[in-house]
Amino acid sequence: MASIAMDSSPSSSLLYPPPAVPMKLHAENREKLLKHLREYLNSSSRPLHGFVLLQGGQEQTRYCTDHEDLFRQESYFAYLFGVREPGFYGAIDVDTGKSILFAPRLPADYAVWMGEIKSLSYFEETYMVSKAFYTDEITQVLNNQYQGSGKPLLFLLHGLNTDSQNFSKPAEFEGIEKFETDLKILHPILAECRVLKSKAELAVIQYANDISSEAHVEVMKKIKPGMKEYQLESMFLHHTYFYGSCRHCSYTCICATGNNSSVLHYGHAAAPNDRTFQDGDMALLDMGAEFCFYGSDITCSFPVNGKFTSNQRLIYNAVLDAHDAVISSMKPGVNWVDMHKLAEKIILQMLKKGSLLVGDVDEMMVERLGSVFMPHGLGHLMGLDTHDVGGYLQGAERPEEPGLSSLRTSRDLLNGMVITVEPGCYFIDALLLPAMESPKTSKFFNREAITKFRGFGGVRIESDLYVTADGCLNLTKVPRKIEDIEAVMGGAPWPIKKSLNDY
Amino acid sequence: MASIAMDSSPSSSLLYPPPAVPMKLHAENREKLLKHLREYLNSSSRPLHGFVLLQGGQEQTRYCTDHEDLFRQESYFAYLFGVREPGFYGAIDVDTGKSILFAPRLPADYAVWMGEIKSLSYFEETYMVSKAFYTDEITQVLNNQYQGSGKPLLFLLHGLNTDSQNFSKPAEFEGIEKFETDLKILHPILAECRVLKSKAELAVIQYANDISSEAHVEVMKKIKPGMKEYQLESMFLHHTYFYGSCRHCSYTCICATGNNSSVLHYGHAAAPNDRTFQDGDMALLDMGAEFCFYGSDITCSFPVNGKFTSNQRLIYNAVLDAHDAVISSMKPGVNWVDMHKLAEKIILQMLKKGSLLVGDVDEMMVERLGSVFMPHGLGHLMGLDTHDVGGYLQGAERPEEPGLSSLRTSRDLLNGMVITVEPGCYFIDALLLPAMESPKTSKFFNREAITKFRGFGGVRIESDLYVTADGCLNLTKVPRKIEDIEAVMGGAPWPIKKSLNDY
Ligand SMILES: [Mn+2]
Ligand SMILES: [Mn+2]
Repeated sequence: MASIAMDSSPSSSLLYPPPAVPMKLHAENREKLLKHLREYLNSSSRPLHGFVLLQGGQEQTRYCTDHEDLFRQESYFAYLFGVREPGFYGAIDVDTGKSILFAPRLPADYAVWMGEIKSLSYFEETYMVSKAFYTDEITQVLNNQYQGSGKPLLFLLHGLNTDSQNFSKPAEFEGIEKFETDLKILHPILAECRVLKSKAELAVIQYANDISSEAHVEVMKKIKPGMKEYQLESMFLHHTYFYGSCRHCSYTCICATGNNSSVLHYGHAAAPNDRTFQDGDMALLDMGAEFCFYGSDITCSFPVNGKFTSNQRLIYNAVLDAHDAVISSMKPGVNWVDMHKLAEKIILQMLKKGSLLVGDVDEMMVERLGSVFMPHGLGHLMGLDTHDVGGYLQGAERPEEPGLSSLRTSRDLLNGMVITVEPGCYFIDALLLPAMESPKTSKFFNREAITKFRGFGGVRIESDLYVTADGCLNLTKVPRKIEDIEAVMGGAPWPIKKSLNDY
Repeated sequence: MASIAMDSSPSSSLLYPPPAVPMKLHAENREKLLKHLREYLNSSSRPLHGFVLLQGGQEQTRYCTDHEDLFRQESYFAYLFGVREPGFYGAIDVDTGKSILFAPRLPADYAVWMGEIKSLSYFEETYMVSKAFYTDEITQVLNNQYQGSGKPLLFLLHGLNTDSQNFSKPAEFEGIEKFETDLKILHPILAECRVLKSKAELAVIQYANDISSEAHVEVMKKIKPGMKEYQLESMFLHHTYFYGSCRHCSYTCICATGNNSSVLHYGHAAAPNDRTFQDGDMALLDMGAEFCFYGSDITCSFPVNGKFTSNQRLIYNAVLDAHDAVISSMKPGVNWVDMHKLAEKIILQMLKKGSLLVGDVDEMMVERLGSVFMPHGLGHLMGLDTHDVGGYLQGAERPEEPGLSSLRTSRDLLNGMVITVEPGCYFIDALLLPAMESPKTSKFFNREAITKFRGFGGVRIESDLYVTADGCLNLTKVPRKIEDIEAVMGGAPWPIKKSLNDY
């Protein structure tokens, strides 16, 4: 029996039942792609013929076994077609604008084992496409539909994901040799479509944020010293699934307490949220649910016992000031590298104010001291993928300086982007000790004060921001001020209000 | 706001905190393999030289993105080494019995992003192996250790998984051409080792069963008409993770209500537990948690309102009688195909007694009528994989008759096997309608009575059994009798008692 009283129940939710996402969202995504693709073809004097053709994701089994991993659609395919089933292809006729889905032809015993075999008209209606066929009909159908001369042209998806350094896999099917294929045009245009979110996409991302925010607050209310880190993850997952129907998370939950909170991507199988935390520890919880393919990415940091010490207050407020200053500065045209530097500078100023650092902050900036305390980038585009596409346009160069090289984008902000703001301040021996020895940076450290923070871990505060026409909108609704956190952890209600009527 | 009052809290657990699994379990697994491998080599007059070499699982990213799926170790590797981290190799020296782990050499910035870089001695101690090296040292280390003459011999894992029809992937590494390799000897011997569970393995499987049983009871107590199927899944997952530290399930949860319960593998992405169920529906919940690599596989069927109707009672008791009769008959030497037929026969007898069928049951058996109502196999070996290895020994033939062809094993039971007993009775139009038309089977149906059951769905009752020296032990502890289910759903306590002192 547990020696501590644990309450893991999500008592209620203001967000149940979850809204239905209209398939129109994906139809609009297709129209947007068509518009930009046609503009490109026109501007480069090419004919408006051919098909965009994408291959959806396939189901996967674990190693040599028949264990089927829960399928999650490939994000580009989800963007254009919203299909939740594996094994599909999708095409868009550049000429007519018609959309075509190709469904796998399922064996008769699928009905016994896996469920009703849906008709083609079911897929046409469900996914709002012009026409549905079977995957073994791709060659024939596209040949019949083609209005141009010669071999029909296929625009296939091939391009670099600048976060993974992997390339997307162009569609493959039997008979592809009967087509001309273009591997260059589609990827940059489609990636850029995904960068600027539509109103419909924003509403979905807002819901993912709302249910995740509510779940974070739930965890704050239920956390107690003596619990295990994975119990926090479990509460979060339960709240977002039970009330929000979110079966997937945007990423593996990071439930780091104590010194674990200085491990930026803690929580994976080799560091699996299994520590028992104690009175006095800080918690850093980076957890976000995915709703109908669209994600959220939220980090809350707070003391597990509900009361900040003065040291915890110092580091927390340094990060919160950076978080708030960035949000106040964000608007279209602002450069993201500048925002990163702004956050660094504020954190360094606060550490100086707190007597951890000494000397001139501008000089610290020149020596890139900020990257010792915040080795990751300030934030990243977010949407269908947690680290969403489009961070570096074709040819855009990644900064090379420490800290800045971790940035997942160096772009100017645009109205319609959703981007995370996630400054952090960590005490990481592997970075701190060399910096304290380095002739260029050793002079900045108050060794006695810094020493007290070794083992402190770190603080991160992460919100998801929508860039508006003249500023930005914070989609994340969790308590941020110390007095609000302490109040909520002490039992005070936290208002989550629906912000969009059109859920 | 939800229009129904929902309580999703696991109020408590008798099973928290979860026990620590001793690494000795995996050391014993290695000793067992060594013993059988040496016996085989001796009996075929081969020298006792060479190394068993296995490659552990690798982390995977989703499509072209940097989204990392939660890593789960490959099962053969988990069996022998118990390693939770990705990227390892493991070797066993057939000559000396020494075990060697090869860990990936991690880049320095792993410490910042992923966590502490563990020393080789950490891995030696944690995983109780003789020695640990880095993966780039495999060739050198194995060459140095080799006691035989000529090129060192590697026993690699290559063989068919008879559930997936996939082959296991033999270890690959740079320098493998400097070794002799054998792809035939290891697989059948190692698979057979996994078939017979040790006491230590049994204790882990028992814990997985206990926490899953408790979670099933939790769901029974909280279920209410008007809820969504996925809310049942969420409660189960939360209970087994929050109290049992089970981060993985053995398989995707099947939370089928109403007619969905006639879809044998409901719950996957294309049929995702998203129905709102209503008063009068049956639920069929097939859910099992995995604990420290070992699984459980449990199905409970009950009316969502907590009270069986007479029709529900009829079908439920038909399946329960089959379940109980099989368990009463199980002991070493008993053939699994005979058990399947026993279950079929009892179900047919009960359907006849309930006036759904008419005629001679033996004649129904000859016409394989049982497979119309139970198209799946009676049960399967279970362990590190839900459908565990060893169901068909090399050369063993799968029965071809309807129903029997779905059996994942046709073996005689052996002391030490863990096998599921999961009879079911389903009303599946795709099977029922043809059988009602077939000249060979149409005469058996009472059409009027059967018609009332179209849309009923199905009932499955699944327990995990350990075959003892003279019978079997039911590891699954959920209410099975109708009066017990109704009592528990009405609020009565359900006793789960720890059965093994040595958790
Ligand atoms: Mn983030
Ligand atoms: Mn099973």
